[in-house]
Amino acid sequence: MTLAATPDTSLEDAVLDVCRRAKVASRPLRVATRATKDAALQAVADALEAATDRIVAANEIDLARGRSEGTSEHLLDRLALDPARIAAVAAAVREVAALPDPVGEVVRGSTLPNGLRLRQLRVPMGVLGVVYEARPNVTVDVAVLALKSGNAVVLRGGSAALESNTVLVEVVRGALESAGLPADAVTSIDEHGRDGVGVLLTARGLVDLLVPRGGADLIQRVVREATVPVIETGVGNCHVYVDASADLRQAVDVVLNAKTSRPSVCNAAETVLVHSALAADFLPSLLTALHGAGVVLHADERAVEAARVAGVPAQAVTDDDWAAEFHGLEIAVGVVDSVQDAVEHIGRWSSAHTEAVLATDVRVTDFFCAAVDSAVVAVNASTRFTDGGEFGLGAEVGISTQKLHARGPMGLGELTTTTWQVLGDGHVRG
Amino acid sequence: MTLAATPDTSLEDAVLDVCRRAKVASRPLRVATRATKDAALQAVADALEAATDRIVAANEIDLARGRSEGTSEHLLDRLALDPARIAAVAAAVREVAALPDPVGEVVRGSTLPNGLRLRQLRVPMGVLGVVYEARPNVTVDVAVLALKSGNAVVLRGGSAALESNTVLVEVVRGALESAGLPADAVTSIDEHGRDGVGVLLTARGLVDLLVPRGGADLIQRVVREATVPVIETGVGNCHVYVDASADLRQAVDVVLNAKTSRPSVCNAAETVLVHSALAADFLPSLLTALHGAGVVLHADERAVEAARVAGVPAQAVTDDDWAAEFHGLEIAVGVVDSVQDAVEHIGRWSSAHTEAVLATDVRVTDFFCAAVDSAVVAVNASTRFTDGGEFGLGAEVGISTQKLHARGPMGLGELTTTTWQVLGDGHVRG
Repeated sequence: MTLAATPDTSLEDAVLDVCRRAKVASRPLRVATRATKDAALQAVADALEAATDRIVAANEIDLARGRSEGTSEHLLDRLALDPARIAAVAAAVREVAALPDPVGEVVRGSTLPNGLRLRQLRVPMGVLGVVYEARPNVTVDVAVLALKSGNAVVLRGGSAALESNTVLVEVVRGALESAGLPADAVTSIDEHGRDGVGVLLTARGLVDLLVPRGGADLIQRVVREATVPVIETGVGNCHVYVDASADLRQAVDVVLNAKTSRPSVCNAAETVLVHSALAADFLPSLLTALHGAGVVLHADERAVEAARVAGVPAQAVTDDDWAAEFHGLEIAVGVVDSVQDAVEHIGRWSSAHTEAVLATDVRVTDFFCAAVDSAVVAVNASTRFTDGGEFGLGAEVGISTQKLHARGPMGLGELTTTTWQVLGDGHVRG
Repeated sequence: MTLAATPDTSLEDAVLDVCRRAKVASRPLRVATRATKDAALQAVADALEAATDRIVAANEIDLARGRSEGTSEHLLDRLALDPARIAAVAAAVREVAALPDPVGEVVRGSTLPNGLRLRQLRVPMGVLGVVYEARPNVTVDVAVLALKSGNAVVLRGGSAALESNTVLVEVVRGALESAGLPADAVTSIDEHGRDGVGVLLTARGLVDLLVPRGGADLIQRVVREATVPVIETGVGNCHVYVDASADLRQAVDVVLNAKTSRPSVCNAAETVLVHSALAADFLPSLLTALHGAGVVLHADERAVEAARVAGVPAQAVTDDDWAAEFHGLEIAVGVVDSVQDAVEHIGRWSSAHTEAVLATDVRVTDFFCAAVDSAVVAVNASTRFTDGGEFGLGAEVGISTQKLHARGPMGLGELTTTTWQVLGDGHVRG
């Protein structure tokens, strides 16, 4: 930056310079062996533990600023780092080191009729950009997933965690350098504020993939402004449909698990649809159970009647409720006359994350699986299983709700691209 | 459209209405069996042949307008349809019908420790948008690839082929309807002109994937304006590196094949880099062969000297030449001192389509394969093999030069996304 430059130009130059340094760093990472990358991850874990006091001190500054700005206790808890949480972050880094390396995996291959040997292999993307909010442990999680998959990463964390993230990035960079990898494999543009994000989103040729992690507003901004390819993650308006053929002993447990086991996360259920044949007997008992678990009910006309039968309160459902990701103990309840009607409702309101069907009639489950266009369909199981860890994919980068490249839980493999190798002996095309 | 609406609003409404109709049509396509889809494709092939006279007549109007506007003979030839070409298009449709259906393919799956059965399956994207130029046969090619993979498609062809494309789309739609599939599975926004493309590019929630097929200007416009996910295709600035260890008997043949066998296509070579150990003897003979094949040489300083030794003309190479996709009989020639220097040159100038290395030293080919970041790397083979047909993928949608979702030749599988099925027996998450 020079004094003569206008602020906008110097901001753009500064952010692009960070991206360029990441791109240079991505080259040795691309050809780094698994042994080198894993040793670097172990060094990161050790360095985080060794820097516990420094990290906690920086986090205290963020927490104090948050308190003075009236941040809610819930958000302060997400922001807080203590020695136990830092140890958990370091343990998660060592778990990533233990995962298989996706780079070099042969996806498919064959020998062609002319003798050419064809191989499609996984290779790193190059440079990732990750924009996220609040929790500072994401800084480390994302950095180590990028490194393990052979990518450099440019980070942009939430301003509420600025001091914490600054120290975490310094610690990670120091560990990388000590392990013989370039420090610039992990960089941050936090110091350039919100305007810096705009530059990152359009850094074509320098950034290969952008992953926004956060609420709908953040994701919409990224999708609107980005010219770099994007993978959207995480908005979950998930549905459970209870068919007339459902095993009713299971159904209440599954709906309760889907709604109440962790209501703040994206794979929690937001709407339950019940077949009209179950409206008189089963639905009142389901609503009683939900109400007993502290869940506020937003019910359509027939479900309001079932609530009256059950003697539990229910509000009239609105279109906003059908569309909502409540992030808490609220649920929309509807009565439908068929699995077709359930699928139509889901097609209209779902965020295409996860939908569950509870049914014993295989014609119903087959139709539901074929007609629902979401990342995950659960049959006689809770929506809460949509998770990289539960799926056995190892660490999870996020849950993609888009159709391109990655859909559903994204593991390390989804942070790679592929390349084709064509191996010949002087072959020319006729 | 109403008279009261402003032109822009009515244009937007009209294009979005086309997209909405495509989305409605995509639902039955999503669950259509292979038998239904293949029967529809056979009906399309039959209908094209039956409509030969009508198609030729419409094409004559496009050709006449092109001639009156001074369109080059080369472009007029790309635009022209005669009975033989229409028969070839119909034959290609029947070939697509014979390909396996990508929908329903199980990509991976397992039974989890808790007994949940996990399956990842290929499913249609939904609605594709394809923007392309000049050749009217692309209209049919793209429509049938979309149908075979269970997708509806919204087409936007080049204005030069407007009459031809209008008739082709009508014929395809009629055949679909006769085969019991919705006509709106194939729609066109050609009548809405260039402004209609802008609406298509931002039709989020209606269009799932955009594929621009055409020159760099078209692709740049799409990437800049689109908020719908995009796969870039086709710009090819391909390189051949001849190492000191190359089998020199093969090397001239491979370079000539890469440059001259079809110089207008994207997998043709645009630059040859030769190791300095070969500059005195091999390079003059290579340049003689290229010149003899009618290739104009753009040479760096050491290659100019080799041309002088060979007694053939060579122009001094410019940065524009290194960056160029010549689309004709021209080539940039450089001398490098190592495979590392070759890889660095390629990293700077390549469009990341296809690069070839000619070498017998496995250390050189291994390094080249690991360090070059392009969709395809050919070892001792011509760049011209980068092609869906040559790779055995069947019909090709295009050649992706981006890293997300599809890289290199795109077959039918790349027009699908995946969904996860989680099959349980009342499973809840602990």
